[in-house]
Amino acid sequence: MKALVYVRLKSEVLDPQGQAIESALKNLGQKKISNVRQGKLIEMDINSHNIDEVKKTVDQVTKTLLANTVIEEYSIEIK
Amino acid sequence: MKALVYVRLKSEVLDPQGQAIESALKNLGQKKISNVRQGKLIEMDINSHNIDEVKKTVDQVTKTLLANTVIEEYSIEIK
Repeated sequence: MKALVYVRLKSEVLDPQGQAIESALKNLGQKKISNVRQGKLIEMDINSHNIDEVKKTVDQVTKTLLANTVIEEYSIEIK
Repeated sequence: MKALVYVRLKSEVLDPQGQAIESALKNLGQKKISNVRQGKLIEMDINSHNIDEVKKTVDQVTKTLLANTVIEEYSIEIK
């Protein structure tokens, strides 16, 4: 099965990467865009057909390695 | 309106970040996960209610600034 993990900075955490993008867009004359935030998207294949097991594995892996849950929030999509 | 841009490395392009994650997972004893790829997720607000205009703006912005279309592919979701 395929899993997609979306990791975003929590909304109350400052996002310098997003601010850099927003500032670059303003310099390019794009003034309608605001509140830019950059996150991560991690895709993986999991060698299992048990959806509960896959969800559990991906959740565990995300908590231990992929997301810093102090400042980041995540969502998981299984395909 | 809110736009989400997903930027991924093309499948034929080597992804060292994904490989590093995969290797770390193997070291943690997680052997069922393979083919890890890391991409970017960019969220933004656009001050417009014309969905066609929003799509066009985000597509243009992605091509010029957010994605390197030589090695990356992208998809856009408007909410």
